[in-house]
Amino acid sequence: MAKTAVSPTRAENYPEWYQQVVKAADLAENSDVRGCMVIKPWGYAIWEGIQRGLDTRFKETGHENAYFPLFIPMSFLEKEAEHVEGFAKECAVVTHHRLEPDGKGGLQPAPSAKLEEPLIVRPTSETIIGATFARWVQSYRDLPILINQWANVVRWELRTRMFLRTTEFLWQEGHTVHATSDEAVEETRKMLDVYAEFAENVMAMPVIKGEKTAGERFPGAVATYSIEAMMQDRKALQAGTSHFLGQNFAKAQEIKFQSQAGELEFAWTTSWGVSTRLVGGLIMSHADDDGLVCPPRLAPAHVVILPIYKSDEERATVLAYCESLKAELATQSYEGEAIRVKLDDRDIRGGDKKWQWVKRGVPIRVEIGPRDVAGGGAFVGTRIGEKPQGMDRAKLVAEAPAMLAQLQQQMFDRAKQARDDASVVIDSLAEFEAFFADGQPGGLVYAHFTDGPDMEAKCKELKVTPRCIPLEPLLGDDGPGKCLFTGAKSERRAVFARAY
Amino acid sequence: MAKTAVSPTRAENYPEWYQQVVKAADLAENSDVRGCMVIKPWGYAIWEGIQRGLDTRFKETGHENAYFPLFIPMSFLEKEAEHVEGFAKECAVVTHHRLEPDGKGGLQPAPSAKLEEPLIVRPTSETIIGATFARWVQSYRDLPILINQWANVVRWELRTRMFLRTTEFLWQEGHTVHATSDEAVEETRKMLDVYAEFAENVMAMPVIKGEKTAGERFPGAVATYSIEAMMQDRKALQAGTSHFLGQNFAKAQEIKFQSQAGELEFAWTTSWGVSTRLVGGLIMSHADDDGLVCPPRLAPAHVVILPIYKSDEERATVLAYCESLKAELATQSYEGEAIRVKLDDRDIRGGDKKWQWVKRGVPIRVEIGPRDVAGGGAFVGTRIGEKPQGMDRAKLVAEAPAMLAQLQQQMFDRAKQARDDASVVIDSLAEFEAFFADGQPGGLVYAHFTDGPDMEAKCKELKVTPRCIPLEPLLGDDGPGKCLFTGAKSERRAVFARAY
Repeated sequence: MAKTAVSPTRAENYPEWYQQVVKAADLAENSDVRGCMVIKPWGYAIWEGIQRGLDTRFKETGHENAYFPLFIPMSFLEKEAEHVEGFAKECAVVTHHRLEPDGKGGLQPAPSAKLEEPLIVRPTSETIIGATFARWVQSYRDLPILINQWANVVRWELRTRMFLRTTEFLWQEGHTVHATSDEAVEETRKMLDVYAEFAENVMAMPVIKGEKTAGERFPGAVATYSIEAMMQDRKALQAGTSHFLGQNFAKAQEIKFQSQAGELEFAWTTSWGVSTRLVGGLIMSHADDDGLVCPPRLAPAHVVILPIYKSDEERATVLAYCESLKAELATQSYEGEAIRVKLDDRDIRGGDKKWQWVKRGVPIRVEIGPRDVAGGGAFVGTRIGEKPQGMDRAKLVAEAPAMLAQLQQQMFDRAKQARDDASVVIDSLAEFEAFFADGQPGGLVYAHFTDGPDMEAKCKELKVTPRCIPLEPLLGDDGPGKCLFTGAKSERRAVFARAY
Repeated sequence: MAKTAVSPTRAENYPEWYQQVVKAADLAENSDVRGCMVIKPWGYAIWEGIQRGLDTRFKETGHENAYFPLFIPMSFLEKEAEHVEGFAKECAVVTHHRLEPDGKGGLQPAPSAKLEEPLIVRPTSETIIGATFARWVQSYRDLPILINQWANVVRWELRTRMFLRTTEFLWQEGHTVHATSDEAVEETRKMLDVYAEFAENVMAMPVIKGEKTAGERFPGAVATYSIEAMMQDRKALQAGTSHFLGQNFAKAQEIKFQSQAGELEFAWTTSWGVSTRLVGGLIMSHADDDGLVCPPRLAPAHVVILPIYKSDEERATVLAYCESLKAELATQSYEGEAIRVKLDDRDIRGGDKKWQWVKRGVPIRVEIGPRDVAGGGAFVGTRIGEKPQGMDRAKLVAEAPAMLAQLQQQMFDRAKQARDDASVVIDSLAEFEAFFADGQPGGLVYAHFTDGPDMEAKCKELKVTPRCIPLEPLLGDDGPGKCLFTGAKSERRAVFARAY
């Protein structure tokens, strides 16, 4: 069996493989604080790419960035009953504002500096932003308000996994206010579309857009929509959510406006977010047993050039050639920007160096030795696809943008094929149970359902959840049918899967 | 007296004028959480401009972004004695990780979810990042480590003022590790230069680069450097700091490496930061009695177009002309990017609209009425400088980049002139006391000094601080002299001023 750069392999132990890819690709590591990770430069550069791509899209759809407090007064969480039930439980509670010596050489929270009202580190910001919006909104002329925030949030998780579920994570949260229900619903759906387009076109990660069933809704929302991706272990990952909040938060936070007709009305609000969890989705969509595979549109470097030499004399010649190749490649553009080229001239063993960039998932690797210099060539490998081969230098420069575009497409196609191969339509409970039996590979099941206790009990038993009711079904778009769990008439299918 | 858009004026009540500019320009507002502000879209767009400009400069000087935990275990703060003295006092302390119903219809921190070790919300990250670096650094080959983090930090301030001093604020903190003292000192000075260049060239805010006296050093640093700007009330503002930490934090955090000679040595570290305080500096450097004045290089919009019409028919013609003017202006470039043009077609009173953009400080305002359309012209006003005037449309488009460049230069020159006018060399204590006597305008004093209790006591009495010992003195570069406070021989002058 071929030796792999990451051990164990996906087949051997998928969860452990994931942790090893995070490590091998230098993406993140556990910190000294329980459940909080350190995002390392390579991982953060990928997150910066995600931020840039989304931020551009948010601004193009009329949103502006703003920033709201990290802390939420405890009393704010008491206002919206469902929301407090969902979010006020496991969170970081600030109770003191000073430390003092404890008399034993250490420190302690100063009893004299106890806060009158505890503060919660935001698990999400609907309540504090809603209180602000209540001040901003007076008249229909002030609407819509279309705001986004890039921030850190904290949810005290018991079981954490880097990027997928951490106590602190980075995200963006959009919050909007509208004069009518229709407008708010339109906004909710529009942002779901933005997420789906970004996931598929930039992350090369195919997603299903759908509405959540009642039991999976955001606490306090009227409707929650999500994009769901399938990972290589056939489990689903909720990659982004968009919530229509109706007037629930407006009523709790007193967001009212004078309508054109002169009436005082409660406004309609939405919220939507994606987080550093997307990096986890990226890994589990594309990485292989040699480490990460970066889609070109998000790769911090598109091309890495690796000089190979034995003597100081060779070194000078090879490095000069590499520098000029780097400059030449950077004159080419991909996706409207100069190709990002990294020349790794560190004085370490060539093999270690090469494998470091393989593990980090750089799309194109170019090795340059004295013979390539002499022949005006380059030895070129792509992170997926054909075997490395010698190439004319001019050809490499000319074709680099097309090579990147092709890799991006290949990655999407490969992930979509894997998902489609694991998607089935099921119309009987027995088949459903067999599909999700222990030891089976699992996947995405399109099945008729009735939202209720029968479905919930069966799903719990099989360790499965309804991921969403697809807006544009990929499979099973065959009209009404019978609920698997109750036999009742069902209008639409939901997608069921094990999930992260 | 001319009516002003902001009241009171600077002359009437400077501190209150500042608050009113923050409000009039829609930059920020107080939140429901004590000492924390909401940064509104216009204020946040200015911060994004600052981030973009600095981030580019950090990357050009070899730094990479990463992200570290929001929380610091209390025990970490006990390790570096001076640092804990400086930072562990007024901070947000997390003691519980769950809320529960309090039995009276409200919530309370759950006694069963008390943390074994309290967590501190980072006031700065030397300790938690240092603990990470200790894992990253093994050999001289791992050095230097050049990292930057964009983050929020919390310091429990008793008296807060928006942007200048808030409990939570946004900043960047650079943290680097080096094999030698020389390299670390070079890094410290390099980043000070980056800050100074950015402040002067982008923010149009002249600064003095200097070293802090011992009493003003960052807790735990061997040397602290700062850039100091002078505000319009002649008080100084510390706008950025860069710290040479020697081996102090490396020893506390056990950052050790194997040297080329095979010895185990402690590393040398630096840290440096600027924050949303810069927005406060921008306001107090440039704003006037009509509101904010944005330097073009940071203005979220360079040009705002204001259509003026009376009938629906006029509206259609005027708007069409405005749209095409907007598109034409956007083909022009300033500082390598398309000119940022905003067309304000909201259906509100023309005067209100115009003044809103004056108060927000947009560099160029263009009013378009039916007569401008008919004559192929525009009515153009700049935020500072000459009176608004009619202008040929083609001329406006052609000259817009030069107008912006000129405004940028005028703003810098004006701020520099104000600072230079308020700077003096003083060689006797009597003059020093008279200069800072109550009722005097104040300013920047270049004076010989000896760091010690005499200086400290006199400064305290006069409510003055030594701002820095300039690296390149602007005034008083006349060799050794006598300390004002003790009469002892002094090699260099420091700059003294009242300060924010």
